[in-house]
Amino acid sequence: MTTKTITVVRDLLATNKAAADAIRRELRARGILGVNLLSSPGSGKTTLLEALADLFRDRFRMAVIEGDIETERDAERIRRKGVPAWQITTGGACHLEARMIGQVLGDVPEAIDLLFIENVGNLVCPASYDLGEDIRLVLLSAPEGDDKPAKYPQAFLSADALVLTKAALLPYLPFDPARAAAEALAIKPGLKVFTVSALRGEGLEGLAGYLAEALARLRSGRA
Amino acid sequence: MTTKTITVVRDLLATNKAAADAIRRELRARGILGVNLLSSPGSGKTTLLEALADLFRDRFRMAVIEGDIETERDAERIRRKGVPAWQITTGGACHLEARMIGQVLGDVPEAIDLLFIENVGNLVCPASYDLGEDIRLVLLSAPEGDDKPAKYPQAFLSADALVLTKAALLPYLPFDPARAAAEALAIKPGLKVFTVSALRGEGLEGLAGYLAEALARLRSGRA
Repeated sequence: MTTKTITVVRDLLATNKAAADAIRRELRARGILGVNLLSSPGSGKTTLLEALADLFRDRFRMAVIEGDIETERDAERIRRKGVPAWQITTGGACHLEARMIGQVLGDVPEAIDLLFIENVGNLVCPASYDLGEDIRLVLLSAPEGDDKPAKYPQAFLSADALVLTKAALLPYLPFDPARAAAEALAIKPGLKVFTVSALRGEGLEGLAGYLAEALARLRSGRA
Repeated sequence: MTTKTITVVRDLLATNKAAADAIRRELRARGILGVNLLSSPGSGKTTLLEALADLFRDRFRMAVIEGDIETERDAERIRRKGVPAWQITTGGACHLEARMIGQVLGDVPEAIDLLFIENVGNLVCPASYDLGEDIRLVLLSAPEGDDKPAKYPQAFLSADALVLTKAALLPYLPFDPARAAAEALAIKPGLKVFTVSALRGEGLEGLAGYLAEALARLRSGRA
C-alpha cells in the first residue's frame, strides 16, 4: 500500500510540474509575473491582496486567482477593489494544482502585469505543488506564533519571500519577529523577509518594491 | 489517473476507520475519553492543552499525543506541565492517522482519564481521519477571521464542539464570535460552542464541564 501510494503521488507531482512549466512559459511570454501566496487559513492573504490593490492602483495592473475549498467570498472581496478575480473551489482538495490554473489562464486579460494566485489556506499541502509562478510568498501572521517555520519547513523552504502579517497586533502577542525570521532563514538562507500590517497599509512598500523588481527582471529576460 | 487515486484514498480511509474503531474500543474498555483537537497552525491547540493541564491538575489525569510534521516542541511544552506526552512527527504528512495512534497507545498509562490527541495544524486533511476519539474539538482563533467555517466546512461538520480561542484579542480584531458560531452551526446543528482565552485561563470551565460530562457518560456505558 505504501509503495503504491508513493507511486501515485509521484505521478501526480510529475504531471503537475509539466503543467506548471507550461504556465510559467506562457506567463513569461506575456510579460506577466506570477505570484503564489501560501499560508495557514486566516493569515491575511486576501487582506494583503486588497492592500496591494490599493497600492498598485496607478502603478500596475493586477489580477487574482483565488483558491478555496468552498465559497466565492475571496474573489468577491478582490472584485470590490476593481481587480479582476476568478474563484477556484476545490470541493475538498487541500491545495491548488497547476491544471486548475491552466483552466483559468485563458480568461486572464492580456494587459496584466501581476497575476496573484491565492492558494487554499494550508501550510502543508500547497508547498508541494508548483503552479507555474515566478515568485512564491509564504505568509505567517503574528498570532500564529514565531515557532511555526521549523514545524512546517517545506512551506518556508519552497518560498522566495516571507511576509510577516498582522504586525499591528504585535503589542498584544508573545511573538518575536526576529525569532520567526531567524528560524525561517535557517531553513531557507537568502529568504526575503517583510513585516506588514495590511489592514493599516503599513510596511507594504518593501514588498511592493520587491515585486516590481521581479517584474522588471522578468521583462528584461533575466528571470 | 483520477480513478486510481480515488481508489487508493478510499482504501486508506477504510483501513484507517478499522484501526480507529479498534482504538475507540480499547479506550472505552479502559475508561479513557479520547479527544482529537483540529485547527489551523497557530490557533492555540497546545496553549489550550497547557491551560487544561492546570485546570485538571487535581481533578483528572490527562495524557497527550502530539502530532507535528517536524519538532518535539509541543510534547516538551506539555511535559513541562507534568503531563505525559508523546510526539509523533509525520515527516511531511498533513494529518495523523489511526495507525500512528495505535503505535503509541501501548505506552499510555492505565490510570488516565483523558487522552488528548493534538493533530497536525491543518484545517483540511485531519478532518477526514478518524483517530478513534470519542470527542472531536475544532479550534478557531479570533485572528483567523469569522468567515472560516463556510470555507473549511468538513472540519466543522466532523466536530462535536467548536472552541473559539484567543478571545483576549477580540478588542483589536474585526472578529464577531456570534457570526463565527452561527456559520458553524449552519454547517453542524447542535455543535457546542465555547469561547476561551487559554493564555489568561478565561472561559475554560464550560469546556472542562463538557469534557467531564462526556467522560462520565463513557464510564456509565452511555457513550
